[in-house]
Amino acid sequence: MDESAPRQERLVFAGLVGGTQVLGLASVVLTAVWMGHYRGGFSWDGSSFQFNVHPLCMVLGLVFLQGDAILVYRVFRNEAKRNVKILHGIIHLLALIVSIVGIVAVFDFHRAAKIPDMYSLHSWCGMLTIVLFCVQWVMGLMFFLFPVASSWLRASYLPVHAFCGLVLVVMSIGTSLLGITEKLLFSIMPSYSTFPAEGVLANVLGLVLVLFGVVLCYLITREEFRRPPNPEEESLSVHFKTLTEGGTPDSP
Amino acid sequence: MDESAPRQERLVFAGLVGGTQVLGLASVVLTAVWMGHYRGGFSWDGSSFQFNVHPLCMVLGLVFLQGDAILVYRVFRNEAKRNVKILHGIIHLLALIVSIVGIVAVFDFHRAAKIPDMYSLHSWCGMLTIVLFCVQWVMGLMFFLFPVASSWLRASYLPVHAFCGLVLVVMSIGTSLLGITEKLLFSIMPSYSTFPAEGVLANVLGLVLVLFGVVLCYLITREEFRRPPNPEEESLSVHFKTLTEGGTPDSP
Repeated sequence: MDESAPRQERLVFAGLVGGTQVLGLASVVLTAVWMGHYRGGFSWDGSSFQFNVHPLCMVLGLVFLQGDAILVYRVFRNEAKRNVKILHGIIHLLALIVSIVGIVAVFDFHRAAKIPDMYSLHSWCGMLTIVLFCVQWVMGLMFFLFPVASSWLRASYLPVHAFCGLVLVVMSIGTSLLGITEKLLFSIMPSYSTFPAEGVLANVLGLVLVLFGVVLCYLITREEFRRPPNPEEESLSVHFKTLTEGGTPDSP
Repeated sequence: MDESAPRQERLVFAGLVGGTQVLGLASVVLTAVWMGHYRGGFSWDGSSFQFNVHPLCMVLGLVFLQGDAILVYRVFRNEAKRNVKILHGIIHLLALIVSIVGIVAVFDFHRAAKIPDMYSLHSWCGMLTIVLFCVQWVMGLMFFLFPVASSWLRASYLPVHAFCGLVLVVMSIGTSLLGITEKLLFSIMPSYSTFPAEGVLANVLGLVLVLFGVVLCYLITREEFRRPPNPEEESLSVHFKTLTEGGTPDSP
């Protein structure tokens, strides 16, 4: 964060960023423990052990990595904007790859076990989220990394892109919670109401994911944590506009 | 919306507000049809028909009414702020009453059917949401309707209050989706994967709730739909500060 910001504000910012990382890592570890210890571990052979790859990849990719990709704009707010953009795009690409592995894992398992696809609310929300995530990634690449769009169009699209990014993280968390409920009711429905360790662990995982989302959204939406306007970048942007739109640097 | 705003902006605003009302009402109607037609209707006798009151009340109270209570600040942005505050508080009170009826319905049903309480992720998220909703309502009343807090404290708390309001609507929607999944797996697990009408209707209800949340959050967070600053109200606020803190109207 900016060195000129008040000390208390910097401490709150550091605490909140640290909080997201602890909560994000805790959600990945809790998912790994749930699938690894209570559900028998991981493999890639079409069995239920292959299914176990699905929750781990989705929490790691669509929740933790997607959240961190958004957070780079706050954490590296004094770095050159182009570098932060590239980091933002790379972490999103990683998130997409991990998520695709997770989706292939569950479709493969369904095919081997002859379980129908895409009938549950979890699958509907999940598919909607991943399709919109891909659209958002391609649009972001075209608008902000490669100069396909005019600077006016980029400026108009930016708040929509940022809003959609947060919506996608929240949808990913909501879909994860639906997945947790589905998995628990498919696996331990008769004993779930007796508070077994597996049920409590999965419920705690759900609450950790909710808290991760709340702290992340707070960090992203608070005005004082935003990237300060950089006169040099503004000027470069004006020159870019001049080059792409044929105006003069002074034109509005 | 402000008459001076560009015509296109006013049209978009009206379309989005209309969209939230259509989606909110559709979610209430879909829940009523699901519980009324597919789950046998409503009663208050401890049977599963009493359980059916629960989803209807929670979607009406914690989603639709809570969403509309937040929306009044955008829809009546040119009305006197005090009147809008009172309307905001009254709709929230209505939402709270309807939600409490919904919660009593499910606890009563559990007691009669000897089903344990509070073991599922849905119940954990729901209880957290309703407790935080009550805290938010009482805090809002103390800070903004009765002059208990200083104007500095009110100004500092306002963005936190607004952020928490949106978080609570999103948590209510997420909890509703968990409830839909739970109810479907408890009721029609063997046939759910064959796409029965009840399963499809409940899934559609889930998507309508998600869309309601997305449009609502967009309306609330867009800068151009915010309440414009009112010089008269600002001046009154300064005088209020003078009276409560003993300073002069010119003090910072």
